[in-house]
Amino acid sequence: MEKDFVLNAWYPAAWSRDVSRSLAQRRILGKLVVLYRLENGGVAALDDACPHRLAPLSMGRLRGDAIECGYHGMTFDCSGACTRIPGQPLIPNNARVRAYPVVENMGLAWIWMGDPALADPVKIPDVPQYHDAAWSSVEGDALAIDCHYLNLADNLCDPAHVSFVHLSTLGNASSEDIPVHSEKQGDKIVTWRWIVDSPAIPLFKKFGNFTGNVDRWHYYHYTPPSTAIIDFGSAPTGTGAPDGNRDNSLQIFACHFITPVDTERCIDHWLFVKNFATDEATTQAMIDQFRLAFDEDKVILEAIHKNEKEPRQTRPLRIAIDASPIRMRKAVEQMIEAERGPHPGDASAA
Amino acid sequence: MEKDFVLNAWYPAAWSRDVSRSLAQRRILGKLVVLYRLENGGVAALDDACPHRLAPLSMGRLRGDAIECGYHGMTFDCSGACTRIPGQPLIPNNARVRAYPVVENMGLAWIWMGDPALADPVKIPDVPQYHDAAWSSVEGDALAIDCHYLNLADNLCDPAHVSFVHLSTLGNASSEDIPVHSEKQGDKIVTWRWIVDSPAIPLFKKFGNFTGNVDRWHYYHYTPPSTAIIDFGSAPTGTGAPDGNRDNSLQIFACHFITPVDTERCIDHWLFVKNFATDEATTQAMIDQFRLAFDEDKVILEAIHKNEKEPRQTRPLRIAIDASPIRMRKAVEQMIEAERGPHPGDASAA
Amino acid sequence: MEKDFVLNAWYPAAWSRDVSRSLAQRRILGKLVVLYRLENGGVAALDDACPHRLAPLSMGRLRGDAIECGYHGMTFDCSGACTRIPGQPLIPNNARVRAYPVVENMGLAWIWMGDPALADPVKIPDVPQYHDAAWSSVEGDALAIDCHYLNLADNLCDPAHVSFVHLSTLGNASSEDIPVHSEKQGDKIVTWRWIVDSPAIPLFKKFGNFTGNVDRWHYYHYTPPSTAIIDFGSAPTGTGAPDGNRDNSLQIFACHFITPVDTERCIDHWLFVKNFATDEATTQAMIDQFRLAFDEDKVILEAIHKNEKEPRQTRPLRIAIDASPIRMRKAVEQMIEAERGPHPGDASAA
Repeated sequence: MEKDFVLNAWYPAAWSRDVSRSLAQRRILGKLVVLYRLENGGVAALDDACPHRLAPLSMGRLRGDAIECGYHGMTFDCSGACTRIPGQPLIPNNARVRAYPVVENMGLAWIWMGDPALADPVKIPDVPQYHDAAWSSVEGDALAIDCHYLNLADNLCDPAHVSFVHLSTLGNASSEDIPVHSEKQGDKIVTWRWIVDSPAIPLFKKFGNFTGNVDRWHYYHYTPPSTAIIDFGSAPTGTGAPDGNRDNSLQIFACHFITPVDTERCIDHWLFVKNFATDEATTQAMIDQFRLAFDEDKVILEAIHKNEKEPRQTRPLRIAIDASPIRMRKAVEQMIEAERGPHPGDASAA
Repeated sequence: MEKDFVLNAWYPAAWSRDVSRSLAQRRILGKLVVLYRLENGGVAALDDACPHRLAPLSMGRLRGDAIECGYHGMTFDCSGACTRIPGQPLIPNNARVRAYPVVENMGLAWIWMGDPALADPVKIPDVPQYHDAAWSSVEGDALAIDCHYLNLADNLCDPAHVSFVHLSTLGNASSEDIPVHSEKQGDKIVTWRWIVDSPAIPLFKKFGNFTGNVDRWHYYHYTPPSTAIIDFGSAPTGTGAPDGNRDNSLQIFACHFITPVDTERCIDHWLFVKNFATDEATTQAMIDQFRLAFDEDKVILEAIHKNEKEPRQTRPLRIAIDASPIRMRKAVEQMIEAERGPHPGDASAA
Repeated sequence: MEKDFVLNAWYPAAWSRDVSRSLAQRRILGKLVVLYRLENGGVAALDDACPHRLAPLSMGRLRGDAIECGYHGMTFDCSGACTRIPGQPLIPNNARVRAYPVVENMGLAWIWMGDPALADPVKIPDVPQYHDAAWSSVEGDALAIDCHYLNLADNLCDPAHVSFVHLSTLGNASSEDIPVHSEKQGDKIVTWRWIVDSPAIPLFKKFGNFTGNVDRWHYYHYTPPSTAIIDFGSAPTGTGAPDGNRDNSLQIFACHFITPVDTERCIDHWLFVKNFATDEATTQAMIDQFRLAFDEDKVILEAIHKNEKEPRQTRPLRIAIDASPIRMRKAVEQMIEAERGPHPGDASAA
């Protein structure tokens, strides 16, 4: 399973709000980890199996920052070192479990499943506006979807589906035939389109006060392997938004931080940062709208996941809007290749 | 999975009553199809996967007689041809899905999963009395059974089980030891027995007015791969039924039109045609009796299906009453062989 | 599956109280058997599949001591011989099912799945005190655990887990660091420890009348492949229990008779024999305490069973308390090896 994923990357392990002094089990990149908050406020993550009989450590007890296994009392500190074997004075060298670096940002605890020496917190996904008092941030859900995470990633490089999947919330028919642009910008794949001088979408109709047509933009910023930040908004037509003036705009950064659970399941940790509607009632109504929309995606993605398992003789068809998903998948493949290192027999190997 | 089935045959896709302007998914011979009624009253069936991302077309929307995919709006007419790709003027040649011939008869929509050029509606199963005003027809259920359809077929070439499985409805002890006859008549396998001068079975006791013993017949007409029509009835002993006079008889044609869902599941679409008891209350009571009886078969067949998966060292025992099931299975095997065509290297190949 | 188990051994098929004139299906060592009580009070066990179409015989009907198959009426006596095929005078030689020896002892019906010629009732597990009027016996449950039976067996060679798993019932912290002794005594593996001059455990606190500290013993007698008899008790410190005087003791023989269902599941038939507290209320309270404790084991064992299926790069760690589980597993392996007989090509083969 490990070779199916990019290991050297930060993935959300859980919402910070869900990490506590209760031991919690999570499955990430196919591996079970136990997650808990340390006495100093930090977060620890260990392989969730005692090396003795493989009892899950998450079924044990916290003793300070150490976990005592619930079966025979073997105890491991937050670095994974064994500190006690009841009834036995000597602790063998191989009595340890693997520990994973965890750092918090944007309300999430991020875990690094790869080489700990490469775990640089600077690489943790971030949206500057999240930390800006002029903007308000809203935490959504940990939406579990029964599909490969790259199918969700396809969806998050893809403004075109909005016109068909999210008619009641995020899209409308006016954008159906407007082409989509795709570009690789450094590590990111950016996908965008402008729908100019059109009616506002239901979400903005509901929460903005537009009286006439608007200019609407969607910029999907995808950083492989698993981070999507969608910058979208609308401004009254004629106020110059397409030329860079967004003074009169409603703008949202919708963040989707994906955790691959295994090759069959993923979790979409979503939140959004916005420059309008700071009251609680409107915020809750927006959460409800997003929930509705993302459940529409979930239904489609899970149906596709099942259909992909059907025997089939033909290869999938690629169409114009697939430029970004194709770039994104290629980038992920290259990252996985790079982690595997040079192949044996490869002349360029040092 | 395809090679497990006879492809060039008509199978029930659904009751006509269940085919509408709502897109419906069915699994037939292991394949998912989307089924819907056309504006002209006909029935269309397509592979249930958009060739782009494999979203089920049954999750899309009907636009006239075409289906618009619910993910990106690709649109396919009822012949399977793509007529629209939103945001893209050019439609590639391979943008199509497979369409299947569907024809209705006897209250069912019949699908042809094989070579469309061979789909001759004349071959659709039929019972002439169904169309005869002197007889009344009663639609039963689509009974889902978790077993290979040939195990259900065994059951439908087999009058002998009635004495043990359906004691409360269709059989009784008087027939336990009466031998069964089996004969291949053209494509059909016919299995029959007469139980002469015996008490009526519970079903006829309930709905006929027999005062004394009856002569009872069971003729099981099985047309491979998946059609059983059971002619059974009773007449007062002494009125000459065994010699061909059935003027005083109660007679039923019980039809079992089987759809193999895959190799683990099938659906028994059953209905019956009868020459007595046209009132609604009696008809409903008969449906209830059949339901009870066929549920008795379902319980046995599903238990056998599970037991067949158990490791076992001995081969199944064959007994006298197996003559027709053996003929039936051989005929199905030959049909599958014939569809595969001559083997490479076979000297007799043209 | 067969090669995963010791075949020549007695295993509990069911509590005697659960064997009746109703046909009951059980899975034992991976095989389905039908179990029923004979008219003379004995117990019969047959392979649970009619050799004709594999209908479970347990879905048939008892005719005296014979079973009539529910599908076509084939009838088998309690030796497995076919005595009737309806509609057919001749009964072929291979029309039979396998029968298994069953003998009752200690409230259980014991089955022998191996060579019937070796089925010696003298080898059925027994506790002499069970038959002694000075002791009282209490039947517990058939506790189903989703794990390999040898993981339960590990647990039943292991006094050390009690201090961590059963804190509220059978253990307490005073024993955490007291070493465990292990010894092979003939066929048995015996594991024991004494906790001298310590507070009584909750169970004995509750039901005994100890005013001060006690000397507590645990002797785990494990007879491979699947029988554990745990002799444990307490006596007031100073009364000489460690030196052999148990006159003032509370003593329990807790019996765990394991049935391997298949390689994924087992059943722990537990009962206990005690020399105190014969009243019903106390007995029921003790059953409740044991139930609580064994459910604690079940939770851990099922979690371990799942964790064992996770991909893993390191081998399990062995610690001091594993001496008996290692001996026990080695003994079981040797028994399985011995049943397979000498390997072909083995020079020492006779």
